[in-house]
Amino acid sequence: MSQSKKKKIVVVGGGTGTHTLLRGLKRYADKLDITAIVTMADSGGSTGRLRDEFGQLPVGDARMALVALSADVDSHDELLRELFLYRFSKGKGLNGHNFGNLLLTALTDILGSEVAAIDAASRILRVRGRVVPVTTDNVNLQATYDDGLVVVGEHEIDEPPESRHTSRITKLSLTPSATINPVATTAITEADMIILGPGDLYTSILANCVVDGFVTALTNSKAKLVYICNLMSRLGQTVGMQASEHVAEISRYTKRTPDFILINNSSFPDDLLARYAEEGNHPIENDCTGESGILVCSDLVSTEAVATIAGDTLKRSLIRHDSEKLASALLQII
Amino acid sequence: MSQSKKKKIVVVGGGTGTHTLLRGLKRYADKLDITAIVTMADSGGSTGRLRDEFGQLPVGDARMALVALSADVDSHDELLRELFLYRFSKGKGLNGHNFGNLLLTALTDILGSEVAAIDAASRILRVRGRVVPVTTDNVNLQATYDDGLVVVGEHEIDEPPESRHTSRITKLSLTPSATINPVATTAITEADMIILGPGDLYTSILANCVVDGFVTALTNSKAKLVYICNLMSRLGQTVGMQASEHVAEISRYTKRTPDFILINNSSFPDDLLARYAEEGNHPIENDCTGESGILVCSDLVSTEAVATIAGDTLKRSLIRHDSEKLASALLQII
Repeated sequence: MSQSKKKKIVVVGGGTGTHTLLRGLKRYADKLDITAIVTMADSGGSTGRLRDEFGQLPVGDARMALVALSADVDSHDELLRELFLYRFSKGKGLNGHNFGNLLLTALTDILGSEVAAIDAASRILRVRGRVVPVTTDNVNLQATYDDGLVVVGEHEIDEPPESRHTSRITKLSLTPSATINPVATTAITEADMIILGPGDLYTSILANCVVDGFVTALTNSKAKLVYICNLMSRLGQTVGMQASEHVAEISRYTKRTPDFILINNSSFPDDLLARYAEEGNHPIENDCTGESGILVCSDLVSTEAVATIAGDTLKRSLIRHDSEKLASALLQII
Repeated sequence: MSQSKKKKIVVVGGGTGTHTLLRGLKRYADKLDITAIVTMADSGGSTGRLRDEFGQLPVGDARMALVALSADVDSHDELLRELFLYRFSKGKGLNGHNFGNLLLTALTDILGSEVAAIDAASRILRVRGRVVPVTTDNVNLQATYDDGLVVVGEHEIDEPPESRHTSRITKLSLTPSATINPVATTAITEADMIILGPGDLYTSILANCVVDGFVTALTNSKAKLVYICNLMSRLGQTVGMQASEHVAEISRYTKRTPDFILINNSSFPDDLLARYAEEGNHPIENDCTGESGILVCSDLVSTEAVATIAGDTLKRSLIRHDSEKLASALLQII
């Protein structure tokens, strides 16, 4: 890898997987120019409430990416990060709100746009890179299932009722349609490497790809395209799907075959697997043959008992990618 | 004034008057070691709601002092200050909450104490000096009026019904009683100058003096004691009182005669006076003879049309002290 000029890496996603990857890449910020393109279709939790009540765009995914890329030099940085992740657990109307979301909401009101608010928060957190909303249009995610059912709202798709646990999503779109943020277009066009995932296939990754202009930008980009496959299936999104089916969906929506597919090859503890199995989730089996991109198989799994995120009470997976292992594997192929 | 060693100035108060004075003194932070001792008895507005719902001490006055002393170097500082003063005007449960209060509430929860939260916020705002709560006990202000009525709660005293507009407070105390914060004791003991005011005589200034240990610390201090007299009377607190009566109350509660009394000698616009008169308020007449401290009479009034504080929707006076004029006058006598 050339030390003379920073490699431009674009991470596309939102949510916990993107957060994990960015935390790993941040440690190489002296060698990498990092841009996180994040989905803006969140409709649940604290973000959803603020979206409803303030009429602002949902900033929850941007917040997670900001925190992941925040400076990590001293205890002051650590405290700011804790503050951004803090969730009020008391207070009429405050209970459940995330402090970082409130900060971005106040900044959006003061500065007049979500993009300006994210830039200002980046300076406060001394972010090592950039966080770019994939669109600045006010949209909702829409999923059409194999039985013809149409569901609107990221939160509704992400937390499906039991009747939809094993459903397949045949079409993902935005309603109304949205145009890509020009800053995202530039980042994609100029990138050396574009990384999709890890993260929920439909609600975190493809939610970005269905924005008008995204596929064109990707087509016009000479960047290597990397897909990081998830470790476990997700109820209502990917139950029953193996790795090759994930890759096929990526190709179908992005109109590009990934140049590299990063897949974990280490095993998981039996007790955790049993817990996932009880819920109906399974490890994503690597059935890729290499025809649809160079396979990079490596141990990518965190061995920390529970990778909780301070103050975050959302339900999180317990089998997780490891920040450092992901970053190391990517640095090998850039 | 010696340039070799910083003079130690302690400002005692809370609220808008203290904010104005601190903003002025901050400009001389290279010559002055500034400590703001602030009341912790606020019970109204956003602070009161958080106090009720989180069981934390009220930090509204500390927040105002922090903002006043915050660094003023670049646009980043300006934005942080705006953020600290921002008040949500929408949102179920959020409406009316001040962002700075929410930040201090979150920091208190994370760090375990209001004092630690104020210190952390001081670092975030790069405060030029220190903000010290007069006590860390959970107390309420209690006023006994000349007709024997006893009212509990800073907010109830500060915003009295019409029937109490011209009442006199014969006794101010705290319920339960409170012990002075040792950091405040040290600051008072080591000060070169202690400044009381400007601010509401009972709810901002004397609210500090009735904390157990305050008077002893003041008695033991060799600091010059300065009282900055208010410009206008305050309904339910000082209607009908002239300057000498203000000074007498200060002396009665602090057991010290001020060494200096700073009094404005410029006039106010007739239309503003008429507006105050409609509400029943009058300019505080300078009837001091100099027996109770050296009189320093100077033009201390702001000529800005309306000295609003960004985002703050509380009712504010329109006849105000001027930050710079206050600071200049004080630098003459230190």
